[in-house]
Amino acid sequence: MKKKLLSNITNILVFLLIFSTSSISEEGMWPMSEVHKLNLKAKGLEIELMDIYNPDGISLIDGIVKVGGCTGSFVSPDGLILTNHHCAYRGVQAASTVNNDYITDGFLANNRMEEISAKGYTVRITDSYEDVSQKVLSAVNEKMDLAERTKAIEKKMKEIVAAAEKNNPGKRAEVSEMFIGKTYVLFIYTYLKDIRLVYVPPRSIGNFGGEVDNWIWPRHTGDFSFLRAYMAPDGSPADYSKDNVPYKPKKYLNVEPKGVNEEDFVFILGYPGRTYRHRTSFYLAYEEEVRMPYVADYYDWQISEMEKMAENNREVAIKHLNRIKGLSNTKKNYRGKLVGLGRLKLTDQKREQEKALQKFIESDAERKEKYGTLLEEIAKIYAEIRANSKRELVLNYLRNSANLLSFAYTINEAAIERAKQDIERESAYMDRNFDRTKERMFLTLADYYQPTDKVLLKEKLVETSKLPQNQRIKVLDEICKSESEIDRFIADIYSKSKLNNKKLLQDLFTKTQKEIQKLDDPFLKLAQKLYPVYQEQKEIAKRRKGAMDKLSAKLVDIKKQFLGTDFNPDANGTLRLTFGYIRGYSPRDALYYNPITTLHGVVEKTTGQEPFDTPKKILDLFQAKDFGKFYNPAVKSVPVGILYNMDTTGGNSGSPILDARGNLVGVNFDRAWEATINDYSWSEDYSRSIAVDIRYVLWVTQKFGGANYLLEEMGVE
Amino acid sequence: MKKKLLSNITNILVFLLIFSTSSISEEGMWPMSEVHKLNLKAKGLEIELMDIYNPDGISLIDGIVKVGGCTGSFVSPDGLILTNHHCAYRGVQAASTVNNDYITDGFLANNRMEEISAKGYTVRITDSYEDVSQKVLSAVNEKMDLAERTKAIEKKMKEIVAAAEKNNPGKRAEVSEMFIGKTYVLFIYTYLKDIRLVYVPPRSIGNFGGEVDNWIWPRHTGDFSFLRAYMAPDGSPADYSKDNVPYKPKKYLNVEPKGVNEEDFVFILGYPGRTYRHRTSFYLAYEEEVRMPYVADYYDWQISEMEKMAENNREVAIKHLNRIKGLSNTKKNYRGKLVGLGRLKLTDQKREQEKALQKFIESDAERKEKYGTLLEEIAKIYAEIRANSKRELVLNYLRNSANLLSFAYTINEAAIERAKQDIERESAYMDRNFDRTKERMFLTLADYYQPTDKVLLKEKLVETSKLPQNQRIKVLDEICKSESEIDRFIADIYSKSKLNNKKLLQDLFTKTQKEIQKLDDPFLKLAQKLYPVYQEQKEIAKRRKGAMDKLSAKLVDIKKQFLGTDFNPDANGTLRLTFGYIRGYSPRDALYYNPITTLHGVVEKTTGQEPFDTPKKILDLFQAKDFGKFYNPAVKSVPVGILYNMDTTGGNSGSPILDARGNLVGVNFDRAWEATINDYSWSEDYSRSIAVDIRYVLWVTQKFGGANYLLEEMGVE
Repeated sequence: MKKKLLSNITNILVFLLIFSTSSISEEGMWPMSEVHKLNLKAKGLEIELMDIYNPDGISLIDGIVKVGGCTGSFVSPDGLILTNHHCAYRGVQAASTVNNDYITDGFLANNRMEEISAKGYTVRITDSYEDVSQKVLSAVNEKMDLAERTKAIEKKMKEIVAAAEKNNPGKRAEVSEMFIGKTYVLFIYTYLKDIRLVYVPPRSIGNFGGEVDNWIWPRHTGDFSFLRAYMAPDGSPADYSKDNVPYKPKKYLNVEPKGVNEEDFVFILGYPGRTYRHRTSFYLAYEEEVRMPYVADYYDWQISEMEKMAENNREVAIKHLNRIKGLSNTKKNYRGKLVGLGRLKLTDQKREQEKALQKFIESDAERKEKYGTLLEEIAKIYAEIRANSKRELVLNYLRNSANLLSFAYTINEAAIERAKQDIERESAYMDRNFDRTKERMFLTLADYYQPTDKVLLKEKLVETSKLPQNQRIKVLDEICKSESEIDRFIADIYSKSKLNNKKLLQDLFTKTQKEIQKLDDPFLKLAQKLYPVYQEQKEIAKRRKGAMDKLSAKLVDIKKQFLGTDFNPDANGTLRLTFGYIRGYSPRDALYYNPITTLHGVVEKTTGQEPFDTPKKILDLFQAKDFGKFYNPAVKSVPVGILYNMDTTGGNSGSPILDARGNLVGVNFDRAWEATINDYSWSEDYSRSIAVDIRYVLWVTQKFGGANYLLEEMGVE
Repeated sequence: MKKKLLSNITNILVFLLIFSTSSISEEGMWPMSEVHKLNLKAKGLEIELMDIYNPDGISLIDGIVKVGGCTGSFVSPDGLILTNHHCAYRGVQAASTVNNDYITDGFLANNRMEEISAKGYTVRITDSYEDVSQKVLSAVNEKMDLAERTKAIEKKMKEIVAAAEKNNPGKRAEVSEMFIGKTYVLFIYTYLKDIRLVYVPPRSIGNFGGEVDNWIWPRHTGDFSFLRAYMAPDGSPADYSKDNVPYKPKKYLNVEPKGVNEEDFVFILGYPGRTYRHRTSFYLAYEEEVRMPYVADYYDWQISEMEKMAENNREVAIKHLNRIKGLSNTKKNYRGKLVGLGRLKLTDQKREQEKALQKFIESDAERKEKYGTLLEEIAKIYAEIRANSKRELVLNYLRNSANLLSFAYTINEAAIERAKQDIERESAYMDRNFDRTKERMFLTLADYYQPTDKVLLKEKLVETSKLPQNQRIKVLDEICKSESEIDRFIADIYSKSKLNNKKLLQDLFTKTQKEIQKLDDPFLKLAQKLYPVYQEQKEIAKRRKGAMDKLSAKLVDIKKQFLGTDFNPDANGTLRLTFGYIRGYSPRDALYYNPITTLHGVVEKTTGQEPFDTPKKILDLFQAKDFGKFYNPAVKSVPVGILYNMDTTGGNSGSPILDARGNLVGVNFDRAWEATINDYSWSEDYSRSIAVDIRYVLWVTQKFGGANYLLEEMGVE
């Protein structure tokens, strides 16, 4: 009876969903190759498509960069970059000490001499792209073993990259998979390596609302920072040097201090990370039932442990800031997705769609022959993943749970990989990436805190000890006999290991596998013990990917036939365009969110307590009505946040919001709560993303930061 | 620095408040005597004022009744009354047993024979009113001692009532204080005493959303019930009897199945309970800092104890339902008020107003002579209250903490009071009220549960034991020596007392004080011990009221001079009119609430778990789109809740929402969260009240309840 009632509710919710979606949505993270199919002028664009993307000349995309995992824009002829506060966070944290806490206080360089290095940051500019699907797929044939197939593709991609980099000296090449197992595009990038902090507002502005407001609209976060890219005096990309000069971008974006209004046409150029809209119900069910709940719970636990460690210890707190921020962000995103999956019954919807697809397949003998077992075969792969999920999830997170284990594993793997020919190596150990791999490790080392490291390692070992008999990690059986044995083991290895030393780590990176094997650091021993386990797991993954590649390619084919339409590939970190309108939404009955928040709202939310501790100077400026030219009569205040129905995901952080004339009017930084589900399904009803309004960026920079020279540099003052 | 920052925030919030209040609000719970001052026709009314209120004929107010603490409306010529589900709750609970759980399942009488008595319910109809201020105030003079003054007024009011009831046989009279210490009005009422349950929806509709949604918009509660009033065959009010016949109201309201739309003009006739808008900052500060936090915490604790007791015991749960509902409602209201007081800094605002008033007073020698010390004297009274607050708060709640103590106290007091002349008695023991006093006690006895009673008594005794030396309750010092002594005492008195027996209680009500004193029931002994303490406290209260009466009357005088305007008296349970519009609001930056919720929203909120456990039949009707004629194209669904900017408070529950033509379009039942502060301050910005839409009432009654005959009786089918 109860079950029946619940299923009844489910039916109705599905009905509601269909009922409430008034029009077919215009979802879309459009690759540049597809943008011409959009009639953007009819939709509101007032410039030419060639002004946005021109492979033979200069266009807006030349002003768009990838900064770390984010997007940014050049906003001056002198390499000034506007991106999110949270995108510059790692660089600000790395430059911070207890005495110079730039996270808390913000950072302002009063002139170029005062700019400081954003350690570990690079800036990537897309130079060109080319479809290389045929080249890549020429490496495989139907008879290949599945793991072999994956390796053949990987190798071919590396070869294409190597050839491209040879033909384009100083550039970096990358082959990106667009439709899984089906289409591949070669991108040529310029990488700048000397990036500096220019103006970063204090946390109380740049991360106003903190985790409470993260993934939430209405939003009042001043999530922006200014960086600057430098190059060698000869114009080539170079590592940090005093002698470097500001980078001269081919194109920089025009900043529009007038901003936008409700229903204005806008578009984004950016590097959205990953979406999973073409995946199956089997994938979604695994995510919903197994992986995301596991990760969300694990991260919750980790955050609370790390916060305990940092209590009353500002030094430890600064070390933990970045990791906690990342964990919290993912955790809240997953929680939002889980709510959304439950509310929309998305997995059930996918199942319904797949049922219809299967019916379509079976309605034609030839189709049945070719695609009849397609869904069944995908189901089998997920069944295998589920059957081993406890073990595989432990392995997924064990290696990087503790820093020292992670370092040891990387040292050991580097020694093995570096002995191979460059093209045969795992990507992280290829010449083109190895420096970056090492640099990342040293940045992590700077945040190392032994008590936390021990707790994180112990938790995963205890979990290992509880794995069911058919999923044991045998090499750890002895260590994981009992909790007391685990405690003893951890106390022992941390007392003996010397891996928390940069010089030693640098030295170890120069050693051969044999030399490493002779050393008796217990973490290196542990890493060597685990290495074959992970190798075996990698092999399994390559086999699965080989199978999934083939099946996914077929799935896209038959779906196109079934739907009688073309569609965009899932996001994969490559340059995309999305367009839409400044627009509010109604997440629930009788509730409506306006698309523009204001400085009044900042004051309204201010409690004086973190994360709602607006600086006094902002409150003073507000009280004095010192709004400069950034006051907007339509909202009777300085606009702070803007909301729009564009299609974004992680990686779009820092993307410029461009108006109908291609001028920069905001900086994208988040999605609304209901839109965490975007990665699986976009909808005009609930898919909304969030930017900081350019007027707030400029107002804070000028009135609060006192960096009027930046407004002058951008030509808005 | 921190302090300065906070005061800065305060200033800004006050500024924000003034800044955001775009126009002077039209607050107002208008007494009928003042309604002619409103130009209601210009505001949207389409009928004559005489149609609403006509002292010499029949008008809408004759169709309005007071039901318990609520308001209701006659909606048929046969005494059918429409009010809130929560207003009928006590009657439904009293009729419920574990086997016949009308709270959970709802109740439908298929015909008049099946209607069951709503025990303890009366229905009051306002016949007439008359200003008797001069008569009342003729009883006092300036030289009177303050307690004596209060008693003289109380006595005079009773005399006026007695005379009026003599002149109006069968009616009841009441003198209501309008402006404290200043204006008094005599009301003549008809009381009907045979009230029956007709149709009550199940809790899952009538209290959908429960405490989670209480005081919250958007709302989806079907908070309505139908009752019927009966009278003796000769037309006179009579107690329940099989021979009674349906009451024929002078007037019944026309039900409008078409309902209303956004921005439609509406008005309410009802009996708002209490507002405190004319009180001073001293009162507000005491409420905010002392009384409301104490009560909210105390009620929170009580609720959790009572819920623990009821776990896995449906019988106890039913007994506790009503008390928990009342406690929760008050507690959440207080929490909302405390948030609002903090947010709006209302006490600070009052202080500013009083500063300005004091300046005005002192700017004229004559005014200064007459009113110079007015505010200072009020301040002194509150200083005295604060100095004794710990003791007085314990006393306030001790007497009724445990049922048995409450019974004993009433029995003892009744014996003392009943020995006096009727007019000299405390109101509860006057002939006109005594039956009702007894009846209430027996209703409470039906919910008696010893383990809960013990816990509640113990808590107050433990609190008594911790009172500071200068606020001790001496007669309890011995019992409250230690917690173990309190435990021993409670175990002892509950094992010996026989007061949980209706027959015994009935018998005790016939005894004299001397006879009572001879009995050795330990609760009667405890009540006798406490009696002089409460008498002393009552004397203090009368002295304070005497002082406050005089001061409040002067305060109203000088405020009228200062503001150069007239204003309405605070609500006091007498008939008032308020008007306004169906209108949404924006409680926070970028957030907007639409003023109409829908059946879609009910389904959207439904989780299958209490309090969001919509009955399957509703979901089926929804899925079948069986909306009857109650579908509204404007909101694309059946409207469920409506929101408006009218001025309401507790007591307005059950009031009819009347459209421009005086037709009933909804039943008022709550306010939005921000409007809990209404009792202190009304604002167009945040003061919104909530009704169940007549279309939902009729749809549920017809389609879900199957009581089409009620729609026919109301003439809408």
